[in-house]
Amino acid sequence: MLLKKNIPVNYVVGKIKGELILVAAYGIIIALFHQFFPSLRISIPIAVPAILATIISLLLAFRSNQAYDRWWEARGIWGAIVNDSRSLAREMTTFLGMNDGSEEIETFKKRFLNRQIAWCYSLSQSLRGQNAYIRSIDFLVDEEVKFTRRFSNMPNALLKLHGMDLRLAHRNGWLNDYQQVQIDGTINRLCDAMGKCERIKNTVFPVTYSLYIHFCLYLFIALLPFGLIEYFGMFEVPLIIAIAAAFLLVEKMAIHLQDPFENKPTDTPTTAISQTIERDLKQMMNDSPEIGLNSKSDQDKESVYYIL
Amino acid sequence: MLLKKNIPVNYVVGKIKGELILVAAYGIIIALFHQFFPSLRISIPIAVPAILATIISLLLAFRSNQAYDRWWEARGIWGAIVNDSRSLAREMTTFLGMNDGSEEIETFKKRFLNRQIAWCYSLSQSLRGQNAYIRSIDFLVDEEVKFTRRFSNMPNALLKLHGMDLRLAHRNGWLNDYQQVQIDGTINRLCDAMGKCERIKNTVFPVTYSLYIHFCLYLFIALLPFGLIEYFGMFEVPLIIAIAAAFLLVEKMAIHLQDPFENKPTDTPTTAISQTIERDLKQMMNDSPEIGLNSKSDQDKESVYYIL
Amino acid sequence: MLLKKNIPVNYVVGKIKGELILVAAYGIIIALFHQFFPSLRISIPIAVPAILATIISLLLAFRSNQAYDRWWEARGIWGAIVNDSRSLAREMTTFLGMNDGSEEIETFKKRFLNRQIAWCYSLSQSLRGQNAYIRSIDFLVDEEVKFTRRFSNMPNALLKLHGMDLRLAHRNGWLNDYQQVQIDGTINRLCDAMGKCERIKNTVFPVTYSLYIHFCLYLFIALLPFGLIEYFGMFEVPLIIAIAAAFLLVEKMAIHLQDPFENKPTDTPTTAISQTIERDLKQMMNDSPEIGLNSKSDQDKESVYYIL
Amino acid sequence: MLLKKNIPVNYVVGKIKGELILVAAYGIIIALFHQFFPSLRISIPIAVPAILATIISLLLAFRSNQAYDRWWEARGIWGAIVNDSRSLAREMTTFLGMNDGSEEIETFKKRFLNRQIAWCYSLSQSLRGQNAYIRSIDFLVDEEVKFTRRFSNMPNALLKLHGMDLRLAHRNGWLNDYQQVQIDGTINRLCDAMGKCERIKNTVFPVTYSLYIHFCLYLFIALLPFGLIEYFGMFEVPLIIAIAAAFLLVEKMAIHLQDPFENKPTDTPTTAISQTIERDLKQMMNDSPEIGLNSKSDQDKESVYYIL
Amino acid sequence: MLLKKNIPVNYVVGKIKGELILVAAYGIIIALFHQFFPSLRISIPIAVPAILATIISLLLAFRSNQAYDRWWEARGIWGAIVNDSRSLAREMTTFLGMNDGSEEIETFKKRFLNRQIAWCYSLSQSLRGQNAYIRSIDFLVDEEVKFTRRFSNMPNALLKLHGMDLRLAHRNGWLNDYQQVQIDGTINRLCDAMGKCERIKNTVFPVTYSLYIHFCLYLFIALLPFGLIEYFGMFEVPLIIAIAAAFLLVEKMAIHLQDPFENKPTDTPTTAISQTIERDLKQMMNDSPEIGLNSKSDQDKESVYYIL
Repeated sequence: MLLKKNIPVNYVVGKIKGELILVAAYGIIIALFHQFFPSLRISIPIAVPAILATIISLLLAFRSNQAYDRWWEARGIWGAIVNDSRSLAREMTTFLGMNDGSEEIETFKKRFLNRQIAWCYSLSQSLRGQNAYIRSIDFLVDEEVKFTRRFSNMPNALLKLHGMDLRLAHRNGWLNDYQQVQIDGTINRLCDAMGKCERIKNTVFPVTYSLYIHFCLYLFIALLPFGLIEYFGMFEVPLIIAIAAAFLLVEKMAIHLQDPFENKPTDTPTTAISQTIERDLKQMMNDSPEIGLNSKSDQDKESVYYIL
Repeated sequence: MLLKKNIPVNYVVGKIKGELILVAAYGIIIALFHQFFPSLRISIPIAVPAILATIISLLLAFRSNQAYDRWWEARGIWGAIVNDSRSLAREMTTFLGMNDGSEEIETFKKRFLNRQIAWCYSLSQSLRGQNAYIRSIDFLVDEEVKFTRRFSNMPNALLKLHGMDLRLAHRNGWLNDYQQVQIDGTINRLCDAMGKCERIKNTVFPVTYSLYIHFCLYLFIALLPFGLIEYFGMFEVPLIIAIAAAFLLVEKMAIHLQDPFENKPTDTPTTAISQTIERDLKQMMNDSPEIGLNSKSDQDKESVYYIL
Repeated sequence: MLLKKNIPVNYVVGKIKGELILVAAYGIIIALFHQFFPSLRISIPIAVPAILATIISLLLAFRSNQAYDRWWEARGIWGAIVNDSRSLAREMTTFLGMNDGSEEIETFKKRFLNRQIAWCYSLSQSLRGQNAYIRSIDFLVDEEVKFTRRFSNMPNALLKLHGMDLRLAHRNGWLNDYQQVQIDGTINRLCDAMGKCERIKNTVFPVTYSLYIHFCLYLFIALLPFGLIEYFGMFEVPLIIAIAAAFLLVEKMAIHLQDPFENKPTDTPTTAISQTIERDLKQMMNDSPEIGLNSKSDQDKESVYYIL
Repeated sequence: MLLKKNIPVNYVVGKIKGELILVAAYGIIIALFHQFFPSLRISIPIAVPAILATIISLLLAFRSNQAYDRWWEARGIWGAIVNDSRSLAREMTTFLGMNDGSEEIETFKKRFLNRQIAWCYSLSQSLRGQNAYIRSIDFLVDEEVKFTRRFSNMPNALLKLHGMDLRLAHRNGWLNDYQQVQIDGTINRLCDAMGKCERIKNTVFPVTYSLYIHFCLYLFIALLPFGLIEYFGMFEVPLIIAIAAAFLLVEKMAIHLQDPFENKPTDTPTTAISQTIERDLKQMMNDSPEIGLNSKSDQDKESVYYIL
Repeated sequence: MLLKKNIPVNYVVGKIKGELILVAAYGIIIALFHQFFPSLRISIPIAVPAILATIISLLLAFRSNQAYDRWWEARGIWGAIVNDSRSLAREMTTFLGMNDGSEEIETFKKRFLNRQIAWCYSLSQSLRGQNAYIRSIDFLVDEEVKFTRRFSNMPNALLKLHGMDLRLAHRNGWLNDYQQVQIDGTINRLCDAMGKCERIKNTVFPVTYSLYIHFCLYLFIALLPFGLIEYFGMFEVPLIIAIAAAFLLVEKMAIHLQDPFENKPTDTPTTAISQTIERDLKQMMNDSPEIGLNSKSDQDKESVYYIL
């Protein structure tokens, strides 16, 4: 269970290749120096790097925790977007269905749900700093696109269009008073999810911590050979590389996890999630006549993107 | 209280048997080497493996925490499914009951609650990557089965059927406006629970951590004999096995806890919980005339599956 | 403030008496051996047990945290039951009061609130694995008792009766549509609380952790004398007992806290809380004409049971 | 920013004065003994107290965390009381205002909001184990006082009066159906806040932990001089006092934080918060014609009480 | 990714410049003394400062955690304010829009949304202890300003005006009963957010911790040279400065994070967030005809202020 098929190990190792080469060179120089200039041998008690290691472990644990929490919160928000999109689709299709058979209502429902799909794609794109229209434009009618052009925040504009359609449906008597308010509550939750994503995206993890940990880490690596060389001789080189690699990997992972919307392979898979929403909403609208795929293969497809 | 009757200790130990044999062989080789080649004795200060032990402890604590949180969250979600299923059943049976005596309503209620039971089973099955129809099909009528075949996500299809039945009940005047919206809120919560389970199922725990901890652990075990052999001689072998077993068990447990829907004996007992829901809902529908079992024996039955 | 009057210190110490006697005997044997067989003296560096102590501290901290969280969650759930019972009573007495003076409504209210008291007692009893009828039966009419006999889960049956009474009140026009739905929401919250208690009761804390910590602890205690004897001689015996007692107490406490519904003096005081609910609800029903006790004495009564 | 003007440092130090004098005496005796009886010198490796220090740090961290969480939760609950009191006042003044000009409604509103102020004061008093009527009685009419005398729990009685007034307003047509239910929801939240405060007040922090930490701490202080005296001689005395003071202060603070309703200067400032609520509600009722104070001075007044 | 363009490193380092100069001077004096008075050399085992380092790390981790939580909570509250402001705007524009075309309603909507913008600015200002009218007055009509002058808490006064306008809209039939209650719920959430900000602002972090950590830190720095000088000689000076800088930076950061409303460059960017709300609400009111900026540039503008 430890290893998933598609781990981009090369991708991960590639991130710290540069650092590791430097560390190796540094270790070799120290070892050679130790070998050929016995009179200049410097050796420090192992306790000094040990203390640093403990402190770094504590700080990395703190940092990993916070980074993991951000990442998990981001994942949870997109999970909530899935849930609320499905709830919205169910409510729109079953509340409005009171007057079945009307062509007008069917068109209305379809436009509404397509706009919800567009909302997911546009939020995904704009969180990654890319053009919010790229995929979403396929699910919008021209008037809607024109309307959203006036807004800085396209997903917010789409939510306003949701609200305006809700008013239309209420005015036409397709929704009763309670149903309007209930669906409005669902849209509020989507609005909350959008704002939470923006908060995570826009709030930088305190930089001092990063710098401090980084600095302690290099201090530790610089001292380590002097503490080990007495016992291990030339063998200290692989040991130093191994220990340094471990610490650097954990630090790297925290850096990746803490910014889950940066269009990297380790991101929250917002595009894959949006595709799931598209599939589910299309099936709930009834315009996807093919037999459903089995759900397992979908999971495989998704999990490819989750790995660090 | 520490030991529950049904602990599959063998199951647990079996998981690390392979590793322990290797560790034992390694320890014996070192000890023999130490014994018969005194001139080549290598001994390192105990502080070196000690540092590694502290770091590993911190990282395992972090990891166990996250794994435990995932497991506990999964358990909490299924607890919420129990609660919302009961609430749904209570609301359906008491809200709709306004026009008692009607055969049609009774059939309707029964179909609705049976579908809720089917929903639990199908969610349980599909989370484990198994055929979602296996148990649930017994609680569905043919039309429902046919309807769900069009969907990739069967539990979601059942929720849509819930919503359509709600519309039917509202249109027939069996539910008033508020009651429809109230029950719709309960279905929304079920939809949330479903999405949360999928999130846990589909989100892989960051693999780098696993690899890093695994790697540190073996490094630690490899160094440990050299640190202990000076003081313990041959006695280092059982000591090494004991310490290695402890660390490996904790790591193994974290690996198990972090994926609570994998059809292993340590999973969230979704099938047992679904059976509890089936029992409760059947009794609330009144078609289970037998005297209730005492609740204790049920607990025993369930707890068998909870143990790691 | 550290010590509360009623600490059952004996109760606590009694739990680890057996272990302590063994530890003392073990320490004495080692010390005597050390004294009389100087040639066989074994002494290990203090660093070895020290490492184990650090690891055990980390694991006990993790475990205490989880156990404390379970205990605090259980306490919080029963706090919520108090709140929702009071809210339910307030809503029933003030919503239904629209047609004051009617004998029928007064009887109805009384039956409803009595059933809520019965619900608390029956939940408390069934969580502890005891007969759910023992106290609750005094607050139920015969028909209700007969109805609940058909259910495995008595508290759930009582909630269904709540729902049926709500329907009755609504049909008779005693409650308007909104009020029915609002009270239904309160009953949903009680249903949630019930399910959460069952979840805590039925979910065993992962046994591997317990075993692992237990095992490490004894390994640590077994090694400790050899690390201390060089510096302390015979004085190591009280020191070992003191340190072992401390660790064992913390472990014991975690074991107790993690299962808060086991009918032990350290449990969540569900019976005392149910009595508080009974008192409050009776006073809100107006059939308790005596002057209220001052609230302080009640607190004293309760706090007796909270101590470990 | 570290020091606030009004820190009662004396208050804090006063709490541990006794302990510190004992520690100083103990340190001096050891040092003199060491000086004048060189043949009996006892010196233990610094590692022994060091291990204890690490363990105590971990346990104090756990305890501080839980104590801080209780204190912060208590503060959060009173924050929620402020919010809900304001919401209640806003809802009462704007919902009921539909029929402006009526003398009767104005009196009704005033009585309701005064009762809400009384509720805050009575909750604050009864949490501290004091007479719940002391300040609150000024805001109640005689009938209300008489009514509450029948209850053990005065704040709960006031909430019931709230509910009865809500019924009155509904029956008189001053509130429509939705408004009654909405305000009832706000009262439910106040009821929850009350119950949560009682839960914190009545739930004792597990005593074993306290005892265990206390015991470890004194063991540590007793061993410390023997570990330091070799390196520091007479200078160990101030060092021991300093280290002991630090640990004792942290322990003391945890003890204070964990019980936030005990009428100590470090409590949750329930009285000050109640005064803020009184001020805000009076201004919202319009019977406070003076120009508002600037908000800064209020903050100063409050923050005086928050410091430990 | 580690470094953002606009890190005010000088700002950060400036904060600890004084301390670092003192530390450097201290280290140099010790080193010179060691060099020139060999007979008076004092050297302590490295274990003594090592223990202190571990303890300080644990305490700083606890403190950083709490400070980070306060900061993140503050950020989350302002995120919720964004969400609820948008929801409020969407609800006001689409619920009230039932009678489109009416000049009166359009004026009403505009006044309402402008007041919401004013509320954000006034809350931002008053949290920082500044004049609450500075920016907000531009968005208020004279009557509103006059009304708020009577209140100590201006944002609360604005919420009361919101409620009064809601009553007006309801009385005029612009909003139906459910819509009034739904919008009232949104205002309640804004009221909660306001109270939560005040809670964080007014609750001082327990001062004892700060003092204790500060004190331990200086004790540690004072002892450190004596532990290192034996191995490093004059090289201990840069090492001491580096280690001291690291600890002092982490402490400083905790101090900054724990008070997120103090008008410092590391604050929660309440003004920038208010500007975002202003932009979004203006666009939703339709009086901002220009084409929206792309959202990326906005994020850059904001993130400037988030860095420590």
